[in-house]
Formats: sequence, C-alpha cells, structure tokens
Amino acid sequence: MSADMLRGDAVRTQARSGLLTGPTCGLAPGYLQANLVIVPRDLAFEFLLFCQRNPKPCPILDVLDPGTWQPRVVAKDADIRTDLPRYRVYERGVLVEEPSDIVRRWRDDLVTFLLGCSFSFEAAMQRAALPVRHIEEGRNVPMYRTNIGCTPAHPFAGPLVVTMRPLTPSQAIEAAVITSRFPQAHGSPVHFGDPQAIGIADLTRPDFGEAVTVRAGEVPVFWACGVTPQAVVMEAKPEIAITHSPGCMFVTDRLAGQ
Amino acid sequence: MSADMLRGDAVRTQARSGLLTGPTCGLAPGYLQANLVIVPRDLAFEFLLFCQRNPKPCPILDVLDPGTWQPRVVAKDADIRTDLPRYRVYERGVLVEEPSDIVRRWRDDLVTFLLGCSFSFEAAMQRAALPVRHIEEGRNVPMYRTNIGCTPAHPFAGPLVVTMRPLTPSQAIEAAVITSRFPQAHGSPVHFGDPQAIGIADLTRPDFGEAVTVRAGEVPVFWACGVTPQAVVMEAKPEIAITHSPGCMFVTDRLAGQ
Repeated sequence: MSADMLRGDAVRTQARSGLLTGPTCGLAPGYLQANLVIVPRDLAFEFLLFCQRNPKPCPILDVLDPGTWQPRVVAKDADIRTDLPRYRVYERGVLVEEPSDIVRRWRDDLVTFLLGCSFSFEAAMQRAALPVRHIEEGRNVPMYRTNIGCTPAHPFAGPLVVTMRPLTPSQAIEAAVITSRFPQAHGSPVHFGDPQAIGIADLTRPDFGEAVTVRAGEVPVFWACGVTPQAVVMEAKPEIAITHSPGCMFVTDRLAGQ
Repeated sequence: MSADMLRGDAVRTQARSGLLTGPTCGLAPGYLQANLVIVPRDLAFEFLLFCQRNPKPCPILDVLDPGTWQPRVVAKDADIRTDLPRYRVYERGVLVEEPSDIVRRWRDDLVTFLLGCSFSFEAAMQRAALPVRHIEEGRNVPMYRTNIGCTPAHPFAGPLVVTMRPLTPSQAIEAAVITSRFPQAHGSPVHFGDPQAIGIADLTRPDFGEAVTVRAGEVPVFWACGVTPQAVVMEAKPEIAITHSPGCMFVTDRLAGQ
C-alpha cells in the first residue's frame, strides 16, 4: 500500500477525489472502519432502536443529525456524501444505483448511521498471530444468514447475519477474549462449532462473500456481521436507503480499541 | 423493610395497588432501578439520540415500542402506567399533575425510556464498606447543575447534572473502580475535588436534593445523574412528557451488575 493510504483522512481524500473506488480492507491499518446506513428521518427512531436492541450486529459509532453530512465524532472534516469509495442506493428495497458519491441524492431529512465493522478486530487478531483465513486466502470474508432472530423494532426485523473464521479451539478461546475488547467492532463471537445449530446448512456456500478453507483440527467461529442491519433495512423497503457498497467502508480517524 | 418489598415485582405490585406512593430508595436491594422518561414519538428519535450521545447521564436500560406499556426486557408482566409509586406529567415544560398512575394519560404515540439510576451502584459501594453519606444521614442525594454541556441532539440540550458523595482519596479511587463496573448506573465519576472547576459555586446549596456533610480529609466526588435527561426534556418543552416523581423509580427484575 502506498504511504498516502496509511491514515483515515488520506483514504477519505482518495475516495473523495474519485481515485479510490474499491474496497478499503487493509487500508489505514488500525483505524476503525464503519458500515454506512442512511434512512429518512421518519424511520430513524425505529432504526436507532433496532441498533440499540441489537448491539452485536449494529455497534453504533456515530449517528448524525438529520440532514447533516459531517460526522461529529469519528472523523474530522469528512463528508459522508463523498468520502466512501462507492455507495448503494435502494428505493423501496430495490438496488437502483451504485454511485461513487451521493451528493445528487442528498436530502435534508436523511439520517446517517455509522456502525462498527469487523476489520478492526481482525487487525488485533493478526497482531496476536491468530489466522484470519479469508485474508490469508485473498478472499472476501464468508457471511451466512442464521436462524437467530434479531430483536425487532418494527418495521425493522430479520435474521442475524454472521461472518466465519476457522480457528483451533485454543485459538478460538484467544480470539473470543481479544474480540470481546472491541464491542464497537461486533465484540466476542456468537457461536462456534456446528453450523447447523444456528441454521447454516453448508459452510462451503456462504450467502455473501466467499468460502474459505477449514483445516483439520479447526472449528468454524461465528461473529455478528454488519450486513445484518443492511439486510434488515432492505427488507423494510423504505422509500430510500443508502449504504456503502460491500467492502467499501467509511474509514474514520479513530484508532480501534480507543 | 417488610419481606414483601425484597423483590422488584413485589415493589411494582405494591405501587400498582396504590399501597406504595413514596420513594423506592432501599427497596428490593440489589435490583436495578430505573428513571422513567416518556415523550411523544415525534421527539423519540432525537431523545434516543441524546441518550446515545450522553451515555453517562442517560444509560439506556430499555426503550419500548411506541404506544407500548409493557417492558420487553427488564421487568416481566410490568405495566409502565401503574407500577411506579408516583409520576410527574408536564405539558410544554410545565408540571401539571403528579398522579399515582398515568392510565388516563396514555396515548398510542407515547414512547417510554427506562434509564439507569445510581441506586444500583450505591448498593455496591456499601458492600465494599464505602460510605454513602446521604444514606448515612437519611437525606436525598445532593444534585448540582454543572457547566459541563451535554452533547446536544436538537431540540434536546443542556448542562450535565451530577450527584455528589464525599470520600477520602483512597475511597474515591476504590469507588471509581467499583462504579466503573456499572455503566448502566452512570458508571465511573465525572469529576472529584474542586466544585468550581465544573461550575458548582456552593456545595452546601444543591440545585436538587439535600446537602450532606463533607468531613475533614474527604473530597467531593461527582457522578453523572439521571436528572440530566429530565431537565433537558423539560427545557425542550414538548407538548407532553411524563417522568417518575423524584425518588419514585421503576424497579426492574434485573439484578445490578448483570
């Protein structure tokens, strides 16, 4: 990676100028990255309530005032409308556009939610010499729909989506302890072992992302995933909703673990 | 205290039947007690945002769906309209009534917030043999307006209100560690020592509650207080707002520290 991608603000500047339009995984190492969800104000209470009731899949980093595009807390001088590499715009649950900025789409009643992302705890796992298989194999993390229901906040409801990382039992225990220190990045795992116990039929066929190798002596370990709130928002079919494009996160100025 | 006041549900039953119309301090020891704030749905997003931005004065125990009076999480079979000993009803910021139930006042658009209360961490301080002066002296805890501004969520804004407990330096350190384990009951202190550093002119004249003795060798230690969100709601002058009457909290089924 070039030296100009080492800090959160540098990555945002590259995204703003249109030079960066792809995934942020591995950029600005150590900086908290965030899932983006934007909904109209008339659904903002219910969506904030959904996040508050489901903190593992929806750890709140910041919520902006209606109509505001400048984060107050996690990133100075940022513009939520331009500083992500790519966005997804949904109308009544249907993906209509995948632009590199949303300036044209902005409205005074839009409310921006920045939610934690697992990239942060993966860096901590790597520092502890724990394997992060999808990074080793150069793939997107495998994600699965489970049969674990989120606590609903009408009209927001749906199943928990999880990510999976294969680990040996002793590594899994260490990973549980380490990731528990990152409640703003989904925290400790929600399950390990038998995938069917949480409604996953086949580990080799993830619902999102790509399958990774589970080696002999390893068990699959599952963490709550930031795709959960996105799936739940799409399912509620709001008039308009905007998210980041998969893997193209908002990079903050905040160091993970702060 | 009679044996029938040892559990959260027993206290709620007494309040519901009208037998208990006074403070809940000391009742159902070990059970989490909650501040009550009820606002109309059209302000619920902004108030939830205020709580999320100011977790020390406003630790969220539960937020009910609009129109719902049964807590989902913290108390089984409870009725928020009857199970507190006494309520305060405000219209456009003016106290208009202090009834023992709010059945008559209920509306389908009212949203109930249950916020943590310092009673829980005081029990933990007492178990650690730390003095809780206002309990020793049989008074209400002294509360003060500070010059520390809360992070606003328009139209909700205002100063942090704090409680004060006098402790020796070594006790203050122990109390900081102990109360940090109760983030749902305001957590660790926000200040100790010089009251003027946070805008308190005279410790002997609290803005709410009663003054307590500060002994030689003790320093005042200040914690965020649940009166903060109430003051902020009154200041915003909503069409209607309902809170508990001072000291007459909602007693949950949840043990403190869980």
